Amino acid sequence: MLIVKKFGGSSVADKERIFNVANRCIEDYKKGNQVVVVLSAMGDTTDELIEKAQSINPNPPKREMDMLLACGEQTSVALMSMAMASLGVPSISLNAFQVAMHTTSKYSNAKFKRIDTDRICSELDLGKIVIVTGFQGINKFDDITTLGRGGSDTTAVALAAALGADACEIYTDVEGVYTADPRIVPNAKKMKEISYDEMLELASLGAKVLHNRSVEMAKKYGVTLVVRSSLTTAEGTIVKEVKGVESMLVSGVAVDKNTARIALIGVKNSPGIAFKVFDLLAKHNINVDVIIQSIGREDTKDISFTVDEAQAREAVQILKENKERLTIQKIMEEENVAKLSIVGAGMQTHAGVAAKMFEALFDVGVNIRMIATSEIRITVLINLDDVDRAMKAVHDKFIDD
Amino acid sequence: MLIVKKFGGSSVADKERIFNVANRCIEDYKKGNQVVVVLSAMGDTTDELIEKAQSINPNPPKREMDMLLACGEQTSVALMSMAMASLGVPSISLNAFQVAMHTTSKYSNAKFKRIDTDRICSELDLGKIVIVTGFQGINKFDDITTLGRGGSDTTAVALAAALGADACEIYTDVEGVYTADPRIVPNAKKMKEISYDEMLELASLGAKVLHNRSVEMAKKYGVTLVVRSSLTTAEGTIVKEVKGVESMLVSGVAVDKNTARIALIGVKNSPGIAFKVFDLLAKHNINVDVIIQSIGREDTKDISFTVDEAQAREAVQILKENKERLTIQKIMEEENVAKLSIVGAGMQTHAGVAAKMFEALFDVGVNIRMIATSEIRITVLINLDDVDRAMKAVHDKFIDD
Repeated sequence: MLIVKKFGGSSVADKERIFNVANRCIEDYKKGNQVVVVLSAMGDTTDELIEKAQSINPNPPKREMDMLLACGEQTSVALMSMAMASLGVPSISLNAFQVAMHTTSKYSNAKFKRIDTDRICSELDLGKIVIVTGFQGINKFDDITTLGRGGSDTTAVALAAALGADACEIYTDVEGVYTADPRIVPNAKKMKEISYDEMLELASLGAKVLHNRSVEMAKKYGVTLVVRSSLTTAEGTIVKEVKGVESMLVSGVAVDKNTARIALIGVKNSPGIAFKVFDLLAKHNINVDVIIQSIGREDTKDISFTVDEAQAREAVQILKENKERLTIQKIMEEENVAKLSIVGAGMQTHAGVAAKMFEALFDVGVNIRMIATSEIRITVLINLDDVDRAMKAVHDKFIDD
Repeated sequence: MLIVKKFGGSSVADKERIFNVANRCIEDYKKGNQVVVVLSAMGDTTDELIEKAQSINPNPPKREMDMLLACGEQTSVALMSMAMASLGVPSISLNAFQVAMHTTSKYSNAKFKRIDTDRICSELDLGKIVIVTGFQGINKFDDITTLGRGGSDTTAVALAAALGADACEIYTDVEGVYTADPRIVPNAKKMKEISYDEMLELASLGAKVLHNRSVEMAKKYGVTLVVRSSLTTAEGTIVKEVKGVESMLVSGVAVDKNTARIALIGVKNSPGIAFKVFDLLAKHNINVDVIIQSIGREDTKDISFTVDEAQAREAVQILKENKERLTIQKIMEEENVAKLSIVGAGMQTHAGVAAKMFEALFDVGVNIRMIATSEIRITVLINLDDVDRAMKAVHDKFIDD
C-alpha cells in the first residue's frame, strides 16, 4: 500500500515529537507499505520567520517572503530524515524543486498545477521513506511559491492524487472531526465518517481541522482522507464521498467567533447599489459572508453583511471613503457577534430542520440576528455571549436527541 | 562595471548589519554598476543548525545536512532583498537551484563544475541587484550540496569568473591582508597587493582572511580579488597575479596555533614504512602537514609530523591500533607547539632568507623544533609559548627593517 501521511507544525515542534512522527511512519513502512511523509515547519517557525521579515521590511515583497518561509519546511524534512537515519531506516527529504511541485505564479497564495512523480517513485522503489516539504511549490520562473496557511494539507492531498495513493492521512492534535467543539460541548461525538461537502461547510465555518482547499481538492480527485491524532492511535474520521447510505440529518455544529457585522443604513433603493458595494469590497480582497438586505424607511433599504473580524476595519474604511457615491447614510460595525451553523447532507431531503434549530435557540433565549442557508447548512448570527449556550442547545437537539 | 561583492556571516548577523550591507551595495548600484551580492548564513546560524542536527542524530547523513544548512544562506538572501526593497531598490534573491550552480556530488565538500549565468544576467538586465546564496550548489541528482566551510568565498570567485566580472570584493571584519596579525605585532602593515601564490601560502598557514580554495580558483581564472572591511571604507588588499614588478622578499608572517606534533619513535628502517603510515592516515582523512624523518638508534628511524590539533587524538588512536604492523616502538604527541611561517614570492630569487629567519629567532632565544620549506615559504615549528616573541622578531627583521 502507498500511504501519504501529513503532520502539522505542532507534531514536529521538538526532538521528542520528531521521533514520535518518525516512529509512526516507520511502523507503516515495516509492515511493507510505501510511505510518503508531508511536513509543515516546526512549531512556531513560520510565525518567527514572518516576524523577522517584518522587522526588516513591514511590507516585504511576497516573492522574497516565500523564499524565506520555504526554509521552515526544508528544515523540518531534513531533520526528520536524520531522525529516521538514526533509527536505521533509509529515507530522503525532498523540497518543492526536487519533487518538483509546479504551481501558479501567485506568491503567498499559489495553487498546484502539476506534480512530477518520477523522483518520489524512484526513491520509493529504492526502499526509502520519502519526506516532502508541505506548503511550497515552484512556479514557471523557478521561483519558490507558498500555498497560504494550511497549505501542507493541500500538498498531502495533491501528492496522494498524483501518486494514486491508497490512503491520505492528515495528522493533527485532535482525534478527528467532532459533532461540535468538545471544549464547549462535552458530549460532542467523534464522527466515524463525513462527506466532502459536509467537511467543506464545517471547515469554512470555523471547525479548523482541515484546510478548505485540501478538501476541495480531495473531492475533485476522489482522495479519501483520514483525520487523526499524531499523539494517540485512535481511529480518526474518514472524509469521503458518502453515497448510498442515508446521510445524517445534521452531522455537526460549528462556530466562528472571528466575525464582524457591518450594517449600511439608508441606502438609496435603486438598482445596482448592492452590486457596487460588494464589487468594491471584492476588489480590495475582502471576503463577504452572510448578506441580508431589508426594506428601510421611505425609499431606502438597509444592507447588512458579515466579514472576517480581521478585515472589518479595512472594510469600514473603504466604505466610508465611498459613502457619497454609494448613497450610504450611516455605517455601523459590530464585533461582538458569532456565526453558529449546523451542517448535514440529510437536510436536502428533510423539511423543518431550520425551524427545529430556531426552536432550540428560542428555548434557551438566544436572539437570532441574521440567517443564511445553503443546501446542507443553516447559519445564524448571534451575540458572542450566547455562543456556548446556543451551541450546546443545538447540539443536544439534533445530535444527542 | 559588473561587481561581485561577498559578505560573510558576521557582516549580516543582525538587522543593523543587513542594512549596512544593503547600503554599501546600493551605493555601487547607484553609480551605474551592475551588482551581484553573495551572502553567507547570518552570524552563528550554521553552527546552530549543526547543533540542532546533532541533537537528533550525532552522525547525520551528509546529504540531509546539506539540505538543512542551505536554509541558512537562503534566509540571508531573502532578508537582504527585503531590506533593499525597503530602501526602494529593486533586487532579487536566488538560491543554488535558481542560478543554477552545478557542483560535484560530494555532500558537505562539493566543488563547482559549472555555473549558469542566464538567470543572473537577465535579472541584472532588468535593473535588479542580484543576491545569491553562497556556500551551496546542486549536484546531478538535483540535490543540494555545500562547499565546506568558507565556501561562500569560492561562490563569489566562481560567479565572478563565470560572469566575467570587473571586480570581486570579499568583505570581512579586517581591513585587508596584513604582514602579520596586528593583535600580536602592533607595527604590522596592511598590504596594498599580494600575489595569488603568497595569499595561498598565507591562507593555508592560518591567516584566516580568505578561503584557500577561493584563492586557487581566482588564480586559475585570473579573477582579481579585493579583501576589505564591511565596517570601514578603507581600501583593502588586492590579490592578483603580480608580474613585472620585483616581488617583496617577504610579504607576510603567519602563525598557526592549532597544530600538534606527533612523533613515531624507533620505526624499522625498511622501505615502505613511511608510505604505510601516511597512507593509513590519508585513508582516515587526516591531513598531515610538515613531515621530518631522522635516523634513530641502530637500524631504526624516527618520523615526526604535524597535524591539525582537532585531528591529533584520532591520528594517535589510529597509529596505536596499527603499532605492530607499522613497527612503531613509541608514539609521542605534543600540542603546545605552533607553526610560524614567512611567505614571499621574492624568496625564489634570493638566497639566505632561511638563514636570516633562523638568526632572528636565535636572537630572541626561540628554539626551532622542525623546519619545512616551499618555493615561497619557510615554516618552523616552535613552542606555543614562544609564538608572539618569535613573530615580532621575524616581522621586524624582514618587514620593518
